[in-house]
Amino acid sequence: MNPLVLQSDFGLDDGAVSAMYGVAVGVDPALRIHDLTHNIPPYDIWEGSYRLAQVLTYWPEGTVFVSVVDPGVGSDRLSVVARTRTGHYVVTPDNGTLTHLEDIFGIAEVREIDETRNRRPGSEESYTFHGRDIYAFTGARLASGATTFADVGRSLDPAQLVRLPVTAPARRGDAVEGTIDTLDVRYGSLWTSIPRTLFRELGVERGDRVTVRVRHHDTVVHAAQVTYAHSFAAVEVGESLLYVNSLDRMAIAINRGHYARAFSLGTGASWHVTLVPVR
Amino acid sequence: MNPLVLQSDFGLDDGAVSAMYGVAVGVDPALRIHDLTHNIPPYDIWEGSYRLAQVLTYWPEGTVFVSVVDPGVGSDRLSVVARTRTGHYVVTPDNGTLTHLEDIFGIAEVREIDETRNRRPGSEESYTFHGRDIYAFTGARLASGATTFADVGRSLDPAQLVRLPVTAPARRGDAVEGTIDTLDVRYGSLWTSIPRTLFRELGVERGDRVTVRVRHHDTVVHAAQVTYAHSFAAVEVGESLLYVNSLDRMAIAINRGHYARAFSLGTGASWHVTLVPVR
Amino acid sequence: MNPLVLQSDFGLDDGAVSAMYGVAVGVDPALRIHDLTHNIPPYDIWEGSYRLAQVLTYWPEGTVFVSVVDPGVGSDRLSVVARTRTGHYVVTPDNGTLTHLEDIFGIAEVREIDETRNRRPGSEESYTFHGRDIYAFTGARLASGATTFADVGRSLDPAQLVRLPVTAPARRGDAVEGTIDTLDVRYGSLWTSIPRTLFRELGVERGDRVTVRVRHHDTVVHAAQVTYAHSFAAVEVGESLLYVNSLDRMAIAINRGHYARAFSLGTGASWHVTLVPVR
Repeated sequence: MNPLVLQSDFGLDDGAVSAMYGVAVGVDPALRIHDLTHNIPPYDIWEGSYRLAQVLTYWPEGTVFVSVVDPGVGSDRLSVVARTRTGHYVVTPDNGTLTHLEDIFGIAEVREIDETRNRRPGSEESYTFHGRDIYAFTGARLASGATTFADVGRSLDPAQLVRLPVTAPARRGDAVEGTIDTLDVRYGSLWTSIPRTLFRELGVERGDRVTVRVRHHDTVVHAAQVTYAHSFAAVEVGESLLYVNSLDRMAIAINRGHYARAFSLGTGASWHVTLVPVR
Repeated sequence: MNPLVLQSDFGLDDGAVSAMYGVAVGVDPALRIHDLTHNIPPYDIWEGSYRLAQVLTYWPEGTVFVSVVDPGVGSDRLSVVARTRTGHYVVTPDNGTLTHLEDIFGIAEVREIDETRNRRPGSEESYTFHGRDIYAFTGARLASGATTFADVGRSLDPAQLVRLPVTAPARRGDAVEGTIDTLDVRYGSLWTSIPRTLFRELGVERGDRVTVRVRHHDTVVHAAQVTYAHSFAAVEVGESLLYVNSLDRMAIAINRGHYARAFSLGTGASWHVTLVPVR
Repeated sequence: MNPLVLQSDFGLDDGAVSAMYGVAVGVDPALRIHDLTHNIPPYDIWEGSYRLAQVLTYWPEGTVFVSVVDPGVGSDRLSVVARTRTGHYVVTPDNGTLTHLEDIFGIAEVREIDETRNRRPGSEESYTFHGRDIYAFTGARLASGATTFADVGRSLDPAQLVRLPVTAPARRGDAVEGTIDTLDVRYGSLWTSIPRTLFRELGVERGDRVTVRVRHHDTVVHAAQVTYAHSFAAVEVGESLLYVNSLDRMAIAINRGHYARAFSLGTGASWHVTLVPVR
């Protein structure tokens, strides 16, 4: 019996998430079911992809994630289960949701869900809620051991998965470049795609000053000097800092402030960030 | 041991829901407790009634629901437990919360909660939070088997339950009529009271055009032609469609848009919708 | 095995809460994990302190609470586990979060978390998310019995805990005084610090009129007469009332209205309220 963890863009205001829970409990009342988040902005596959990467390795090996951000429900997009190199499973439409997991942790194997065997009995007339009828049902059966990964359906080539456009973070001379992947929603911090290990190649020490430059598409929209610090508490209230976030990547914040709102910055593949040490 | 599922209009910002959980855990630490939603708009009994109907049958037979939308707490409104014809239990104030369940699934039996036996010990001086002191407590005892349905209290005639005013969906010549029961909150779709089976009597096929007409009280406030489709993916982004929702009723949406906001439409018994095939 | 209950100011929009859950499940997959709330306003230690007091005794003795409102993460603020006189445990930064629990229920014993023994393996390079790496990890080990309270770390003097400024409620002649501690968020009621037992010393009976006077710092900003009632249902819709809330303290509300918004009133140590019987 493995944990089952649900993610969606359904919100918590109506009964959609509860219906998924009910289906999973019906598969096996002993299942332990938990949430990633259900507040992914509607249709935002990028955010769904990122949140999976944010939490994956804090859950035990064998955990089964179900992620339902599914604007293409009812089209011919495939339904798949991926096994990551870390030994976790993800049940999801094949629409880019696995992009960050693939880049950060690697996908070991993918199988297409054979809907003739893996569909809630009696749901054949339902075309708009695969989260309940296929994904929660299949995830619950996998997590409970009622079915096996091999039995999900035929094996697919991971290289053929739909991918979101992602620019890999890179060193450019005395600088590192990446994108603003997401916000730490409540505190307004910018979480970049730049790993700590890449940044450390610049030889910056805690307490040093670093220039942050942000481009939206091709236009520089923000530049500022910030202090590289262990944590918020190392700088004054209202002061900006560069730090290593809980995903082991570089992040930029204002202590007790809201960096993204202060400088009208956004997130996604079109938001580029460059870090240059001040010498 | 059956699952316990909680619903309320308390929101998740304070400790009210957690207090209900604590009481239930205190009844039996082995209970599995889940949520329907706690974001029912304050005092909105209609919405509470609808959400129960949205999820009921996706939970196993024997599941005990506790629903606390209770503007009359402290008045002489009764507290009841209903057994539906589907074999589920609902613990609730008798204020109309059972209306949609009765119309769609049927109520097999109702009992009044005898508060002398079914009240959290030590809560006799508390008059404002029956959700915690009576409903969660009684629901947990029922779900865990610490008490039985027969022991809840005296049997009531289901016909005497408080009901919300509901107009039954109906065929009128070449059209079907119903009400806009609720919104699919995140996506702005209108969920009507018209069952798929009633609509199919019109002989409409997928791909056919249908005229949607909406009246608020006696005034027509919206009319448009939409395509009857399997799912959102069958129409263009920005195009309107009529489809069968996950409750097996007719719904109207704009693919990637927000129908209710686009045309300033509301929900409830005063919002009437008519569907007429375009010949 | 005791229940584990999590509280934070992280919100439910990203993966932070789920990462804490994953860590706890990794400690022991059989743990029962629940929430208090994760919608504490960012950095609002007062609110975190109050919410713990709101729910504590509705959970069984032995329950382990983890509360992460932690603006000082990365500073030299201590991490502690408190045992209350009621036999509950609270894992938290030492920043005032225990204030209401101490005043209302009493703290029996406090221990500093020894991070050399009580830290998620592999998290040594993480300085910004003690909620996941120390608090959830330690709370899960305590709740599951993998460690004992004595083994958390050295004992501290409870008198040395960081405290928020709190004015004790008091009798002043024919009146009682206290503060507006919080709002019942969804319904707009003011929850005061005045216990029912203190208020009852005034000899007021249900149905009597009471004058409510509110001061912000030193200025009277509101005064009104309200009816002392059992519950909302005892007054008309739109009428104001004084009642005993679910924490056994005095509260002020408008039936179906929003008292705080109606009169622009706030909460916290600078908002004083006086209740005087109308004779």
